[in-house]
Amino acid sequence: MTDLLTSALQPRSVAIIGASDNIHRIGGRPIYYMQRHGFKGAIYPVNPSREEIQGCKSYASLSALPEVPDLALVVVGGDKAVAAVEECADLGVKSAVVIASGFGETGPEGVELQRHMVARARAKGMRLYGPNTQGLANFGTGAIAGFSTMFIEVPPMDGPIGIVSQSGGMSAMTYGLLRGRGLGVRHVHATGNEADVSVGELALAVAHDPDVRLLLLYLESIANPAMLAAAAAHARERDLPIIAIKAGRSAQGQKAASSHTGSLANEDRTVDAFFRQHGIWRVRDPHEQARAAQAYLKGWRPEGRRLVVISNSGASCVMGADAAEDEGLPLAELSAQTQAAVASKLPGFATASNPIDVTAALLSDSGLFGKVLPEVAQDPAADLFFINIPVAGAGYDVQTFARDAAAFEAATGKPVAVAAWQESVAEPFSAQGIATFPNEGEALGVLAQVTNHTALMRKQRTAWPALPQVQLPEGVRGFLNEADSLALLARHGIPTVPLRLCHSAQEARDAFDAVGAPAVVKACSAEVPHKSEHGLVALGVATREQAADLYERFDAKMQAMGVARDGVIVAATRKGRHEFMVGARVDPVFGPVVVVGDGGKNVEALKDCAVLLPPFSTADVVQALGTLRIAPLLAGVRGDPPLDVQALAEIAVAVGRVIAGARGAMASVDLNPVMVGAAGEGAVVVDALVECAGVPSSGS
Amino acid sequence: MTDLLTSALQPRSVAIIGASDNIHRIGGRPIYYMQRHGFKGAIYPVNPSREEIQGCKSYASLSALPEVPDLALVVVGGDKAVAAVEECADLGVKSAVVIASGFGETGPEGVELQRHMVARARAKGMRLYGPNTQGLANFGTGAIAGFSTMFIEVPPMDGPIGIVSQSGGMSAMTYGLLRGRGLGVRHVHATGNEADVSVGELALAVAHDPDVRLLLLYLESIANPAMLAAAAAHARERDLPIIAIKAGRSAQGQKAASSHTGSLANEDRTVDAFFRQHGIWRVRDPHEQARAAQAYLKGWRPEGRRLVVISNSGASCVMGADAAEDEGLPLAELSAQTQAAVASKLPGFATASNPIDVTAALLSDSGLFGKVLPEVAQDPAADLFFINIPVAGAGYDVQTFARDAAAFEAATGKPVAVAAWQESVAEPFSAQGIATFPNEGEALGVLAQVTNHTALMRKQRTAWPALPQVQLPEGVRGFLNEADSLALLARHGIPTVPLRLCHSAQEARDAFDAVGAPAVVKACSAEVPHKSEHGLVALGVATREQAADLYERFDAKMQAMGVARDGVIVAATRKGRHEFMVGARVDPVFGPVVVVGDGGKNVEALKDCAVLLPPFSTADVVQALGTLRIAPLLAGVRGDPPLDVQALAEIAVAVGRVIAGARGAMASVDLNPVMVGAAGEGAVVVDALVECAGVPSSGS
Repeated sequence: MTDLLTSALQPRSVAIIGASDNIHRIGGRPIYYMQRHGFKGAIYPVNPSREEIQGCKSYASLSALPEVPDLALVVVGGDKAVAAVEECADLGVKSAVVIASGFGETGPEGVELQRHMVARARAKGMRLYGPNTQGLANFGTGAIAGFSTMFIEVPPMDGPIGIVSQSGGMSAMTYGLLRGRGLGVRHVHATGNEADVSVGELALAVAHDPDVRLLLLYLESIANPAMLAAAAAHARERDLPIIAIKAGRSAQGQKAASSHTGSLANEDRTVDAFFRQHGIWRVRDPHEQARAAQAYLKGWRPEGRRLVVISNSGASCVMGADAAEDEGLPLAELSAQTQAAVASKLPGFATASNPIDVTAALLSDSGLFGKVLPEVAQDPAADLFFINIPVAGAGYDVQTFARDAAAFEAATGKPVAVAAWQESVAEPFSAQGIATFPNEGEALGVLAQVTNHTALMRKQRTAWPALPQVQLPEGVRGFLNEADSLALLARHGIPTVPLRLCHSAQEARDAFDAVGAPAVVKACSAEVPHKSEHGLVALGVATREQAADLYERFDAKMQAMGVARDGVIVAATRKGRHEFMVGARVDPVFGPVVVVGDGGKNVEALKDCAVLLPPFSTADVVQALGTLRIAPLLAGVRGDPPLDVQALAEIAVAVGRVIAGARGAMASVDLNPVMVGAAGEGAVVVDALVECAGVPSSGS
Repeated sequence: MTDLLTSALQPRSVAIIGASDNIHRIGGRPIYYMQRHGFKGAIYPVNPSREEIQGCKSYASLSALPEVPDLALVVVGGDKAVAAVEECADLGVKSAVVIASGFGETGPEGVELQRHMVARARAKGMRLYGPNTQGLANFGTGAIAGFSTMFIEVPPMDGPIGIVSQSGGMSAMTYGLLRGRGLGVRHVHATGNEADVSVGELALAVAHDPDVRLLLLYLESIANPAMLAAAAAHARERDLPIIAIKAGRSAQGQKAASSHTGSLANEDRTVDAFFRQHGIWRVRDPHEQARAAQAYLKGWRPEGRRLVVISNSGASCVMGADAAEDEGLPLAELSAQTQAAVASKLPGFATASNPIDVTAALLSDSGLFGKVLPEVAQDPAADLFFINIPVAGAGYDVQTFARDAAAFEAATGKPVAVAAWQESVAEPFSAQGIATFPNEGEALGVLAQVTNHTALMRKQRTAWPALPQVQLPEGVRGFLNEADSLALLARHGIPTVPLRLCHSAQEARDAFDAVGAPAVVKACSAEVPHKSEHGLVALGVATREQAADLYERFDAKMQAMGVARDGVIVAATRKGRHEFMVGARVDPVFGPVVVVGDGGKNVEALKDCAVLLPPFSTADVVQALGTLRIAPLLAGVRGDPPLDVQALAEIAVAVGRVIAGARGAMASVDLNPVMVGAAGEGAVVVDALVECAGVPSSGS
């Protein structure tokens, strides 16, 4: 549980330990900023060598202050920082922001020092920010416990945006980009080494600020996904969009991140799945965060994705249509009526279908946009509007275009984006409050982002009923054999191939009679997870005597290999129309993770799979299957019937519930192949491998 | 053969038919521009209602001019335009630029009018530009036969860039973007409807201007690839990079393009292959053309792609590493020596490995970049340099950073790109001539583009020896049967499965004995190209009597279907480690096109294939195979040996030579599956279908 970090974000009093009269020093900046940006609480400079600092009385020590401050900003470095934190904790300060670097990011000794500070703080109920942070800034309260140069470079203005970032540099850059676009920013917080308070916890606190309408995050590692999930849940509840950067997307980036902060790498596809699960939109960099901000703040929450493109250039119509397809935005099919109405407003050589080319006739008739737009607005097929003006200038009445576009947006309530690279063209649109971009790629990228993000935020969350009790053999660490693995899955309702585990040639004969020809015979040993590589699998076994012979051969082979002889499996042959895989593992950070994908021998080489985080529904699985490269096969090719994706999805959900139900006792499970038949024929698991974590389930 | 369009690009005299005294009218602009931008030749306004126009004597008619002008600009519209073109041609004018619209873009009648004008011009040796064009502009000679408003919006400056565009709007926009970046532009030409002169031919002419060092094209359709190829060949010869937009990349875009200009759609993957083949770099829009221009003009021609990232922000190091991986740029592995040398210049908590984080210590030591760069320059592992400055401002000596970076670039001759979004940070770098971008995505995108484009331009071109004579049955239009198709391929040295075409059960028995068990039996009829869908294929035929039975059954079935009974094939069974496909067809614009890809039943659904244009080498095929989604399988998975890609590549080259050798008589050929074995085991075509175009070969 969190107290929403009030003592840091809305402190009544702030002490600066290591205060300076020089506003260009780290100890001078926060005082300067707080005085300038309306902080109403008490400011207590602590510096034994001065009487007064920036007009405030300076104190020799923390204990000399007239009250215990809510927040202490620790600007001194090294051992002094540690001592200051200890003193703060002992005195009952509620929050301490530690600017000093040289802690966790430098190696094990620094990590130990951090731990010590946090332990001391916790013991006294104090929260710690940093160390190695640029600090916190709340322009709503004027509480600026940070020193970023950027607040001098680009003057602050309070507004509806919150920024929470591990990196001080990125918080400053994002702030600067937003302010450069004229947008107001309230929260600019950096968490640095996150010895105590993380981006997730600060995000949760900021999400509770009712004036915040857009939340931007920068993360280099996710150590506490639950806190971030809580922030996202609260944000969704109040329709607050979160746009996050998670750097270290690539192998190179993860290596750089680990050398930057020493943080654990997160598996990137799991990060993607986590963000999707929680309605957080992921972008690559602060530019992508900033470019979309205005659209969100305008309250765009599109219901559909059918786009109308309007331009005064045929070429821009074509490139707009291309860019729309890149972004997955289909061009709206305007009704014949709409097209006729549009055509009646345009010169004969213009194009009245979508994209609508008003042509250079715009030069002689400035009202063309204004005439065309209301006609298009009538058409229910149109969800999103994009006006592309690649060329204008002397003779073009851009003011009129902009007024007409603004009136149209106000009347329809539907998103209108404009692309114009000429400042003289963009400016009148911006002045009318229209979302204006330098090119069609950005404009359509933002339209698509807001549309997709809205759908993601509004998506019904899946709830799972009580998890099954999943019992794993006690004391086993490592793989169960195939028979035990399949039996465990079968016990939890997952369809598996009929089989018998045989311990003699006669049992193999009997099993053959039971499962029917052609049968599959496989050696069964927990110590040989990859049987086929050892020639321990026989397909198409046609007679009971062949089955008996194979029993003898496989048993002898296992004996020769010196591995546990758990028996020989005689199984029915099951073929589907396509082989899939379903896997699950427990991620050290995110917990149970399920993977579905193309199956068979080439799974690891082709990696055509999708990641799902519990809880998820069969509909989620079907959607995930639709992102696979083999997705076109799902509907059936060349006259084949569609595949039974529902049956496959049910297996994936069941596997997710099993690994979650094992509560840490199951390290992983791998079902490959899962034979999937035509719709209605079902799916069946033909081979499986369960890995035990070697620890008991963490309780039910 | 072309005369390099001298009479249009360097005319000695220009007549303006429909001249105006008003410089804001289309008939007034060109005169204004020519007078202003140093045109040294004669300007002849033609307008019967005036004595003088913009200080020039005005003439009542073309025939009244004191000389026949090199170039006539036809500003009048409709029938008057046609009459003016006729008069120009009859008088011996060398080039006419027709501004008027209302021709080919409006429908069949307009197309007919265009044809008429071109025919009249050709008969008299006159070249025609447009109609429906914004015209031509050469700021080297001052010959501005165009009216773009943009030359008023953004003042021209002669320089080393040429723009040739179908669209006038795009030529103007690209010009404006380049001038906005301070770059000089010489040629700004629009071809409009291309009734006569195309982008390709103008590009060839502009490529012969020795002062042009970068050529930018905008195309909506490619009708004459040979001319474009000739332009590209000349450009490559003189190391002149070409960056092209081909709009209508997507289904939506092609539809819009066809309604814009009525032009034929080009298959987009073939366009990609064509550009690759000719060393032309393809981008999406004018912004991408403009953003890379400076880097090309600086003469960047990188020899390698190993990148060094340097920043004053750890987060930017991480995002830089991510963006580098997005662009396929590996981070250079700096030697231990380099790292030690770099570390000695940096504070203890900075990172000396690549990416190099100089940290905010840059604030206190402005010389840090200057100290670090020479140490890195020593390291032969570094090809490309990227400096990322997400935050700077008061207290940072950016002038010094910029000077140090410029000195470094001059000393090493290696590309240095800077990302800085703050104008105050970017400006000093730009002033030093450093390529500076607003973000790491653009900076690394351009570094990667120039590196990849340089490699593409320098790639050895493949030459094919004389093509084979490929004989197709006379008078056949449509498919050959499988036996004939395979026989044709075999005659040209392509390995095919051993088979016999049988016409009786006894022949089937004999054939079985010859090919061996297990055999494959297939019905053979040119009228049943998809045999398996009719149950006319049997695999794993084990005995000669089975073969004989199948003969009877398949023959009866063909008879029942009422199709040509060409016989029944008894073939050997050939299995490889993977099934591929090789196909070829004659594209109506680009000629023979070869496709290689993943084979089997799902070819059309999964479309995992790559396009090659003849002539190409086996190395080209191997490279193309490396772009497939199944590429990871080529090296062999889970201990398997690598596949015999060389054998597959040889088949692809042979197929390309066969379809090219057929000189139009072969419409398409489809080899699927091609069974490819392990390296050294070869590849063999198991099924094939040749389609005859029904026309004789176009001669040898």
